[in-house]
Amino acid sequence: MAKVVPIKRSILEKDQLVADGIRKNLAARGVVMLNCIGSPGAGKTTLLEHTFSQLELRAGVVEGDIATERDAERIRRAGVPAVQINTKGLCHLEAQLVQRALEELPLNDLDLVVVENVGNLVCPAEFDLGEDRKIAISSVPEGDDKPLKYPHLFTLSEVVVLTKTDLLPHIPFDKARFWEDVRFLNPKALCLEVCAPSGEGLDSWLGVLSEWCHAKRQKDSV
Amino acid sequence: MAKVVPIKRSILEKDQLVADGIRKNLAARGVVMLNCIGSPGAGKTTLLEHTFSQLELRAGVVEGDIATERDAERIRRAGVPAVQINTKGLCHLEAQLVQRALEELPLNDLDLVVVENVGNLVCPAEFDLGEDRKIAISSVPEGDDKPLKYPHLFTLSEVVVLTKTDLLPHIPFDKARFWEDVRFLNPKALCLEVCAPSGEGLDSWLGVLSEWCHAKRQKDSV
Repeated sequence: MAKVVPIKRSILEKDQLVADGIRKNLAARGVVMLNCIGSPGAGKTTLLEHTFSQLELRAGVVEGDIATERDAERIRRAGVPAVQINTKGLCHLEAQLVQRALEELPLNDLDLVVVENVGNLVCPAEFDLGEDRKIAISSVPEGDDKPLKYPHLFTLSEVVVLTKTDLLPHIPFDKARFWEDVRFLNPKALCLEVCAPSGEGLDSWLGVLSEWCHAKRQKDSV
Repeated sequence: MAKVVPIKRSILEKDQLVADGIRKNLAARGVVMLNCIGSPGAGKTTLLEHTFSQLELRAGVVEGDIATERDAERIRRAGVPAVQINTKGLCHLEAQLVQRALEELPLNDLDLVVVENVGNLVCPAEFDLGEDRKIAISSVPEGDDKPLKYPHLFTLSEVVVLTKTDLLPHIPFDKARFWEDVRFLNPKALCLEVCAPSGEGLDSWLGVLSEWCHAKRQKDSV
């Protein structure tokens, strides 16, 4: 999290108003927004690429990175509109940045917006972007000790996706311990294991996304 | 980096004074201090464990983590004194935290202090802790695109250590591209490849540490 100084409160309050506005705007259109958070190289973009190649929903992406347009280009190659935010040093996305990016997406034609936050297991969890749900992405090679060492994100996320499960035979990783620690922090978290390139475990993830988008449309049409 | 607000400057100025004080204190004792920075799960602690099992220098460690004492316990099991700092949410170490930790290490009996920063490829690079050198630790499974996506750390580091090279056969990773991007950002960086558990590449890293500690003692005794 950013250093706690007196001035922080007013910035956060302004940002919260923007986040609330985003939430209201998306609710009015029946669009679900997810905030995907994980370390650099956790496999966030790869998960999204393979998600969109199979997902039967109209999706758009907001990509957050310190530098380069690479991730947005990868998403666009998967046939999905993507807006790149370069934070130029800022270690997380904030609602005002996301709001400007959303103006560039065709929201009226979408069911789902996925925000891929800056690769960082710490700071992004502190900031409400107006999302419906936070998703924690953690990869096997990062190690099984990450939930307890970086508890905040795992506590706040509705889904924890363990990626790169194809590397399990090559790395010491105690899967039982990993999930036990996740459930200790967050007993209600939905726990998914995925190897995106091979497609293993992807069906459950796709099913969750479809269910959420369907439920939001139902709710908004009542 | 932390959000840029007017109050930040005075905090950074105070922190810089503390960092300068640490640097002066360690120079007087001929102790080298390194600031190791990398993503969560980049292999920082594993590199240190295997370093200390072979290093013929008297070392101490300052461990920075959001939560848990696990990494300090691992280092102590390797026979090296370690002080754990739990930042409780703060995404990086600051000089004042390190100063207090150094008071718990037997500095007069050490050649080398290694600070293992909070797992984070962004924020820790912004803060001077009074170290002699920054070391960037990047692991193969994070992907070959990390230098250009997170340029600040790679630009500032004197050494870039690519870890987990044993996973190269199992992961698409363009090593030539990785090093090319590192050299584009930082032509003078020393580039090392290590698989700590097998010991591959460890000799070069140990040689660099010995050379630095030897040079500092020589300089301080002139």
